[in-house]
Amino acid sequence: FSLISCDKPKKPNVLFLLADDAGFEIGAYLNKIVQTPNIDALARRSLLFEKAFVSVSSCSPSRSAILTGQPIHQNGMYGLHNAENHFNSFDNIQSLPKILKNHNIKTGLIGKKHVGPSEAFKFDFEATEEQHSINQVGRNITKIKLLVREFLKNSSDSQFFLMVAFHDPHRCGHVTPQFGPFCERFGSGEEGMGIIEDWHPIYYQWEQVQLPYYIQDTEPARRDIAAQYTTISRLDQGIGLVLKELESAGRNRDTLVIYTSDNGPPFPSGRTNFYEPGMNVPLLMSSPDKKRWHEATYALTSHLDLLPTFLDWFDIPQQNLDENEVTSLTGKSLLSLLDHDPPNDDTTAVFGSHNFHEVTMAYPMRVIRNKRYKLIHNLYYESKFPIDQDFYVSWTFQDILNRTISKMGIPWYKTLKNYYIRPEFELYDLNKDILERQNLAYKKDFLKLRNEMEEKLKKWQEDTNDPWRCEPHAVLEDKGDFKGNPSCLTLAHDEL
Amino acid sequence: FSLISCDKPKKPNVLFLLADDAGFEIGAYLNKIVQTPNIDALARRSLLFEKAFVSVSSCSPSRSAILTGQPIHQNGMYGLHNAENHFNSFDNIQSLPKILKNHNIKTGLIGKKHVGPSEAFKFDFEATEEQHSINQVGRNITKIKLLVREFLKNSSDSQFFLMVAFHDPHRCGHVTPQFGPFCERFGSGEEGMGIIEDWHPIYYQWEQVQLPYYIQDTEPARRDIAAQYTTISRLDQGIGLVLKELESAGRNRDTLVIYTSDNGPPFPSGRTNFYEPGMNVPLLMSSPDKKRWHEATYALTSHLDLLPTFLDWFDIPQQNLDENEVTSLTGKSLLSLLDHDPPNDDTTAVFGSHNFHEVTMAYPMRVIRNKRYKLIHNLYYESKFPIDQDFYVSWTFQDILNRTISKMGIPWYKTLKNYYIRPEFELYDLNKDILERQNLAYKKDFLKLRNEMEEKLKKWQEDTNDPWRCEPHAVLEDKGDFKGNPSCLTLAHDEL
Ligand SMILES: [Ca+2]
Ligand SMILES: [Ca+2]
Ligand SMILES: [Mg+2]
Ligand SMILES: [Mg+2]
Repeated sequence: FSLISCDKPKKPNVLFLLADDAGFEIGAYLNKIVQTPNIDALARRSLLFEKAFVSVSSCSPSRSAILTGQPIHQNGMYGLHNAENHFNSFDNIQSLPKILKNHNIKTGLIGKKHVGPSEAFKFDFEATEEQHSINQVGRNITKIKLLVREFLKNSSDSQFFLMVAFHDPHRCGHVTPQFGPFCERFGSGEEGMGIIEDWHPIYYQWEQVQLPYYIQDTEPARRDIAAQYTTISRLDQGIGLVLKELESAGRNRDTLVIYTSDNGPPFPSGRTNFYEPGMNVPLLMSSPDKKRWHEATYALTSHLDLLPTFLDWFDIPQQNLDENEVTSLTGKSLLSLLDHDPPNDDTTAVFGSHNFHEVTMAYPMRVIRNKRYKLIHNLYYESKFPIDQDFYVSWTFQDILNRTISKMGIPWYKTLKNYYIRPEFELYDLNKDILERQNLAYKKDFLKLRNEMEEKLKKWQEDTNDPWRCEPHAVLEDKGDFKGNPSCLTLAHDEL
Repeated sequence: FSLISCDKPKKPNVLFLLADDAGFEIGAYLNKIVQTPNIDALARRSLLFEKAFVSVSSCSPSRSAILTGQPIHQNGMYGLHNAENHFNSFDNIQSLPKILKNHNIKTGLIGKKHVGPSEAFKFDFEATEEQHSINQVGRNITKIKLLVREFLKNSSDSQFFLMVAFHDPHRCGHVTPQFGPFCERFGSGEEGMGIIEDWHPIYYQWEQVQLPYYIQDTEPARRDIAAQYTTISRLDQGIGLVLKELESAGRNRDTLVIYTSDNGPPFPSGRTNFYEPGMNVPLLMSSPDKKRWHEATYALTSHLDLLPTFLDWFDIPQQNLDENEVTSLTGKSLLSLLDHDPPNDDTTAVFGSHNFHEVTMAYPMRVIRNKRYKLIHNLYYESKFPIDQDFYVSWTFQDILNRTISKMGIPWYKTLKNYYIRPEFELYDLNKDILERQNLAYKKDFLKLRNEMEEKLKKWQEDTNDPWRCEPHAVLEDKGDFKGNPSCLTLAHDEL
């Protein structure tokens, strides 16, 4: 038990706002078309992160990484939790809600849970897809508002951690296409769509969307983006409602607010990828004591830093965690950034680990990214990059596919072929090549750099006990004769 | 609840003897060297199956398939259960122990469990690696004897299903090499090995083992086999002890006894493969009413037939199962074989489904095998066939690896290269080519046959709702617009 938080009421709280598959389609991040006045207002009261990265660009894995502070190869959530995928973290995992419960902090989760086992991620208050329809609890911003109100009312005497996990702006064309590709008509008041009382839908012209470099410039893709924008605007209004509840409850002056997204947008090079559109996500940190409001930071930060940040905010020392769990965390609290940026350091790096997304999509990748360079290790480079069910049926991907099959050109920065077929290593100079098109991994001048980054990546994999760390050309042995001396033993692929 | 088994005591029971990674190293199957007098004696009181096949050649998956009657892609146990792999069947799965409990049949599991979630496979009596050391409960035949005695004593008034799941003759060089590569010295009475009271170790000359075609003829490999034989002889003596307990308890006259192995031996082309050494396993069925004792059958049978066989034996109608679970089983009871073989039918087939073994070893395969032909679909044919940690450190594999690296010849029927690199489809004529070396899948004369078998395999995948059934060149869509009309939609790999 904590010695700190026993008798003084109204100690600092956390409101953690998580979007589902959102990218930089936000006014505060210089998108000129999409309307996000509430997020923009939050940004003016926040430190805005330009270089925040997920540790995995996939829904359940990313949430598990956020809530455990561990990359997925360490916490066991290798892929999606739902349906036939049914990935789970290890039963005995040390999770944020468990830790906070031990410190008498009231925890709530409203919206999308998508992690398991259920008991390992148990919040005191849960209103998720386990009790409700996911669209109701994740997209109906009126319902979300009322749930937040209920939680805050029940928590008026306690410190709290509230996670509001919007399902917007996730696609839904794969499961409920009747509401449009992004469920952008769900609750719009149109015939058969139901109504979300608090929502004022905003519609966008496909000709006028702000096309990011990683999406082809065609009508179907632009229409896809326009639909996404409408859903983002619903998310934005939802965030406005939630922040208003916080204020009405009188808790805005003692609550740290963080906004981010679990992974990049569901477009090519986005979700399920470690290219920048998949990996780099918005992050806003609004400190109630107004520290660095309306400033931006370019400090490299990882979602693996979030759990240490929350613990730091609640004054929970990390060494306490080791009682049940030997794991030490590789992330670091971000709170010091509220005072000032760290000294400039070219060697600081963030790391990522992806295994599956859907269980049929085995495509393990590991990544290290420092200020200037990124090295991706595609462990299954011999196979084609897999496409998930949700992205597959999207207008954007169908357009790429149809144009490829009919040998039409695609006004796009890639071809389907080079999207599917990837080399074992990819090394990019992000200063000169933010589009990540010129692979330097096999260039003579970059071998030294590649080796250094590979070493660092391997070190991180060892530190986090990555079962995949010898793949694909060796076998990890760490038991029996190799106990205490884990080793990668060759499969002699090169000798064949 | 059952209407059948309520008040008449001493109804027929089942003793299910399961070996771990055992093949045909048995006197009754014409091995002339290994000493297995107890299994041989059981064989003389059994119908002996020459053509029994696992549905997956991997430990946890195979056990889950046996205990659910469902292939792994249907029950969710896609790979190993232990440690970082932590695969599990679906929580709500209909399992044999659950069904039997509902019918008031007392269930026991002694030895290796290796399936989960624990609650989904709950036996009334469990003495497994969840409570004991796996070597004690799976290889210490004295301990096993006493546990069986305890179970039978507690079950004297009930119908029972007792599964004795030996850990022998599994390898152990990977985790406890101090006991030898197959734990063949564990409990031998030698210094530091402990003693198993009832065990009389038999040692074999490596020069004299009966070399199967799929293992290279070298001293290290032969020493590996010799160690395996010693462990098989311990298994055999354990089976003798268990059968004696059954007799002492007076239950041998009302108990169906089945012996089989969860997968083929841990040698090349064995475990984790769908080649015959991995897939074809011994199976003995000893009916207490002496039906077809000391006969052999060549009827094609699958481990997926075991659950229907057990239900049939206990007079539990399969339609009852659908109350909680819509799944209908594709297996058929084997009990009619105790009367006579089925009419000769060249189109009867067995099926198999493999996804992982270790979680780092994604290599999904599907197989259909009829009397004469076998078609294997290697979904990840672009990748190299993976090698598990346990097999990797074996003398046999190390010998293959070292000889390959040093460019020595290997007195073996394959090369490491063609073991690693496999075509998408493999079609073998087992009448002419039992070694499965001549792939007919791409021969013009066999395209019609291949298509027919592919269709049948696909049909089985659809019937069992295989999430991998569109892999590797298409994406399965079965929700939204495709609800009720599941479809494989192309990735256009061929158009690139
Ligand atoms: Ca997501
Ligand atoms: Ca086994
Ligand atoms: Mg796929
Ligand atoms: Mg491997």
